[in-house]
Amino acid sequence: MTSKGQITNWFLSLQDSICSALEQEDGKGKFEEDNWLRKEGGGGRTRIIQNGNVIEKGGVLFSAVHGKLPQKIGDDFILSREVSEIQHFYATGVSIVIHPKNPFVPIVHMNVRYFEMDNGVWWFGGGIDLTPHYVDEEDALFFHNALKTACDKHHPNYYHDFKNRADDYFYIPHRNETRGVGGIFFDKLNEKSGATNEQLFEFVKEVGNTFAPTYTALMNKNKSKSFTEENKYWQLLRRGRYVEFNLVYDLGTKFGLETNGRTESILMSLPETASWAYNYIPVLNSPEEKTLSFLKKNMDWTT
Amino acid sequence: MTSKGQITNWFLSLQDSICSALEQEDGKGKFEEDNWLRKEGGGGRTRIIQNGNVIEKGGVLFSAVHGKLPQKIGDDFILSREVSEIQHFYATGVSIVIHPKNPFVPIVHMNVRYFEMDNGVWWFGGGIDLTPHYVDEEDALFFHNALKTACDKHHPNYYHDFKNRADDYFYIPHRNETRGVGGIFFDKLNEKSGATNEQLFEFVKEVGNTFAPTYTALMNKNKSKSFTEENKYWQLLRRGRYVEFNLVYDLGTKFGLETNGRTESILMSLPETASWAYNYIPVLNSPEEKTLSFLKKNMDWTT
Repeated sequence: MTSKGQITNWFLSLQDSICSALEQEDGKGKFEEDNWLRKEGGGGRTRIIQNGNVIEKGGVLFSAVHGKLPQKIGDDFILSREVSEIQHFYATGVSIVIHPKNPFVPIVHMNVRYFEMDNGVWWFGGGIDLTPHYVDEEDALFFHNALKTACDKHHPNYYHDFKNRADDYFYIPHRNETRGVGGIFFDKLNEKSGATNEQLFEFVKEVGNTFAPTYTALMNKNKSKSFTEENKYWQLLRRGRYVEFNLVYDLGTKFGLETNGRTESILMSLPETASWAYNYIPVLNSPEEKTLSFLKKNMDWTT
Repeated sequence: MTSKGQITNWFLSLQDSICSALEQEDGKGKFEEDNWLRKEGGGGRTRIIQNGNVIEKGGVLFSAVHGKLPQKIGDDFILSREVSEIQHFYATGVSIVIHPKNPFVPIVHMNVRYFEMDNGVWWFGGGIDLTPHYVDEEDALFFHNALKTACDKHHPNYYHDFKNRADDYFYIPHRNETRGVGGIFFDKLNEKSGATNEQLFEFVKEVGNTFAPTYTALMNKNKSKSFTEENKYWQLLRRGRYVEFNLVYDLGTKFGLETNGRTESILMSLPETASWAYNYIPVLNSPEEKTLSFLKKNMDWTT
């Protein structure tokens, strides 16, 4: 059984290595750090980057919080049937959202997290997903194959199962669109999954370590592409959808806002600028229309 | 007892008169109309204005929908204790949100609505609230005094009670800010309030008729004011807060999205463009800081 201290330290080192890799690829932007304390216990190390060469606005956030589990959280968000009395909990993780300047560089999100309670219940969770403003099939394949390679080292079903969960999770029902080309999503992974605590921690490390080389490759490939005003406007509209997903559906955002989390850290996921147009319909056979045709569940991005 | 047909027709005429008044004051923008049908019964007449002289993006929406009341709606949104079996319902109303171009013209919202069920239960609801990007005390007083005058014609307690409900409703807990300078909010007004159906309909008409002269006066007063890039940026940040309120807390938005409403009509409330900055703190003693100091509950805007 890995201690929460070991997991916490690894998440801190992951935040460091990802920030370094992103700064290096960006070439200009520097993360600024805010340390914060949570009144009820614990705190976080929020790192925000704004106005880089490639990254317009983004965050790489570490937090480790603890305290009494509110009944509401036990009921709504976690695993109510296993919480019969008030429990102390410890939760730690790293969350990332990057909004690039260039419309041909995709938005990316990652979260890896660990949760435990005094009653011995623990689990890992996490996910990565890619939201291109314009879906580039080559990039989507590259991204999913990197995730599949990471997953396959740990279990032959992980990629298949977690890719399907991402399709379900990163979905905007009122738009009938997926948020982007998906990725992987997993939650409440513990010994009941058939893997040991140590094996699951190794898997979470693998996911965390996959982020930087995969996303910086996509930054590098696309950051110098030229774009038009129409491309930029489409990017703002797609960011509008991202805002809709995060504020209406995202459970991490909901959990954070409802439990009096640090608002500025939670809402770092929102872009610098987003737009909405009434009933915008892309031109027939345009790249914008083609992108919409890819925003569906059950796309196969591995072959 | 006023028939639902009479109420519906009055709401249609209200939409007409408000659209005319707004077009006249704007001088350029024209409403475009989309009629839509709801699969489960009823439909709406959505009117959207974009790229006017004064109005950047806004909508004046009429709808009249009917059908079986889903249990979920009975439980979550309406009055669960009075719904013991599946009821047929009829709901009609007018909803308005206007986002102006000039940062010194305030955002405005109004909703008036009527709901009835086959079991004889009925009520009126509604509200108006003003969200200035920069709070101008004279404008806030003018706005609230217009609402108080309208309320006072119908009941001496209405303004006091409905102003306090607006303070509670148009509030963003995660920002510890009201959405703007508030207004009035009322819901489930029926015979139990002590007024008759006819008296309440007259009150709702009074509220509806107060909208156009009050808001066009604020458009007229402020539309030609010059503004800087800093003013414009602040407007985008305030619009970001508006988006947060509407997507996270607004019950009409939530109800619409969860009941498979017409997304483009529901989300007409979102601005053309909005911005987010990490941990933005206005300069000491700036107009922006002064505005934040006004975004509190229990402000007295009548004297």
